[in-house]
Amino acid sequence: MGTMSIDDIQITPLRRIETIGGDVLHALKQDDAGYAGFGEVYFSWIKCGAIKAWKRHTRMTMNLVVPFGQVRFVFHQSHAQYRIEEIGDAHYARITVPPGIWFGFKGLITPQCLVMNFANLPHESNEVERIKKSDFNYSWD
Amino acid sequence: MGTMSIDDIQITPLRRIETIGGDVLHALKQDDAGYAGFGEVYFSWIKCGAIKAWKRHTRMTMNLVVPFGQVRFVFHQSHAQYRIEEIGDAHYARITVPPGIWFGFKGLITPQCLVMNFANLPHESNEVERIKKSDFNYSWD
Repeated sequence: MGTMSIDDIQITPLRRIETIGGDVLHALKQDDAGYAGFGEVYFSWIKCGAIKAWKRHTRMTMNLVVPFGQVRFVFHQSHAQYRIEEIGDAHYARITVPPGIWFGFKGLITPQCLVMNFANLPHESNEVERIKKSDFNYSWD
Repeated sequence: MGTMSIDDIQITPLRRIETIGGDVLHALKQDDAGYAGFGEVYFSWIKCGAIKAWKRHTRMTMNLVVPFGQVRFVFHQSHAQYRIEEIGDAHYARITVPPGIWFGFKGLITPQCLVMNFANLPHESNEVERIKKSDFNYSWD
């Protein structure tokens, strides 16, 4: 596998099916293009205005869905190139992120927003790199 | 595989990790006892007071998690035996439901609650049986 760039991130619109008693929201199927195997699925809450940044997975492919709220994801490339994707209630879609890309995210809706990460690997602390928010000079405002 | 009973339903407590900016919530890992393969993951909203009942999957194993709100799941056995499990904010846990069991669920928190179903099969309409809520005389109040 060569080095992944922010152009390799895939955005897949998802169906939200109106249902009596509460809507049904698609997330991921085994035959979807973004599916890269299953290791772990977990949730991250992100408070409105809060920023979690920056992280990079060395081997994990992430499939990110926001069933509740609206979240800005920022993906960083060398030379201060960024790719910004906002998903959630206002744009219900899945973001598939290959390994090797620095990312951060911000909650846009009060009081907090819910991110599901469907990952091809279980969490391993030695597979994640972290740097401080200020280590890239992206303006989150 | 013999006929599954409501005693075969597994409840697994899950970790909720306090995190600056928003908590992280475990859901399912590939080496968890309840993992039965991956076919599809999707969400169902259930409005407070709404009831979705009754459904039975003939081949699907469900792994149910409620990351937001609180939901009562009712599982039915022959001879008017029921098993009731409430999961969500007040009891963060996963319910693993083998195929062959009639179930329904009710939202307990306003305005609505979110259910994740991690299923070992993708949705197929001919794999689900449905009957009316009134077909079992369980009292939902």
